[in-house]
Amino acid sequence: MRSEQQEGAVLWFTGLSGAGKSTLAEATREALGALGRRVEVLDGDAVREFLSKGLTFSRADRDLNVMRIAFVANLLARNGVIAITAAISPYRDTRAQARALCGERFIEAYVSAPLATCEARDVKGLYKRARAGEIQQFTGITDPYEPPEVCELTVATHTLSLDQSVAHVLSTLRSRGVL
Amino acid sequence: MRSEQQEGAVLWFTGLSGAGKSTLAEATREALGALGRRVEVLDGDAVREFLSKGLTFSRADRDLNVMRIAFVANLLARNGVIAITAAISPYRDTRAQARALCGERFIEAYVSAPLATCEARDVKGLYKRARAGEIQQFTGITDPYEPPEVCELTVATHTLSLDQSVAHVLSTLRSRGVL
Repeated sequence: MRSEQQEGAVLWFTGLSGAGKSTLAEATREALGALGRRVEVLDGDAVREFLSKGLTFSRADRDLNVMRIAFVANLLARNGVIAITAAISPYRDTRAQARALCGERFIEAYVSAPLATCEARDVKGLYKRARAGEIQQFTGITDPYEPPEVCELTVATHTLSLDQSVAHVLSTLRSRGVL
Repeated sequence: MRSEQQEGAVLWFTGLSGAGKSTLAEATREALGALGRRVEVLDGDAVREFLSKGLTFSRADRDLNVMRIAFVANLLARNGVIAITAAISPYRDTRAQARALCGERFIEAYVSAPLATCEARDVKGLYKRARAGEIQQFTGITDPYEPPEVCELTVATHTLSLDQSVAHVLSTLRSRGVL
């Protein structure tokens, strides 16, 4: 298939801190790159520096951050790129707004590791600090996380291996005509 | 040429308010679209809503806005899209930072209509309000505009027709291997 005809997509990972969104996003990027697809991961330092800088963890600022990422992801997707996002994006209604912006290209993927698992992993030590009151408005502890009621894909990173998780993502992209 | 091999670019219009950046950006978009190229214009309401919201006209906020647009333009350009920006981007140093971010894909295009022309046009009535002191930090009146010392392209919209201006832009893209 020629690139002009390739369908872009917004692969929107949502889930708690420590659920494995970034790890899965990177592994998916590699797998898609190996298939010759154009792919961008909107996550990490570059997004923090250019899109999220100065924003707080208030509801309004979280929403602004999510919609800003959605705007960029949609620009990429409508140009044939598979844009992968890895923001916690805790609010159902805001994810619905992101979906409305991106249209049919939006694939919501719930990275569903439960709080107990994420807190036990505590890769960055954030849960410990949140429990100690050192971080305010921490999703899952002192701020809500609203899991999807329906979404295109759920990935239980606490029971699947990373390879299995990636295979599950690719299978969904295939069944939706993106691959 | 197949799209996978097509070179993206960041076509960075800079110039005073009223110099014709947005008009030229839109006309260039149409011309490139007619050539079958993927193109995005980063300008207008969508950029104001998603990228620039809440920012002031302070130097720091102007710079943040410019770098945010550069970040998005670069993401698009490295995926084969011609990303056209139309921010005033008044500071030479900040444009140099945008260029550093985007690398060789960056094509700086000075839309060089002089202040007197822009002020005489005053399409949005902004110069009148700036002269009356109703708008602070207005580029060219109460805030500096630093024209490029060297750039890939200068378009004198006060002496060229729109068609001539677009032809000039396309010629530059051709000579740089983008078309």
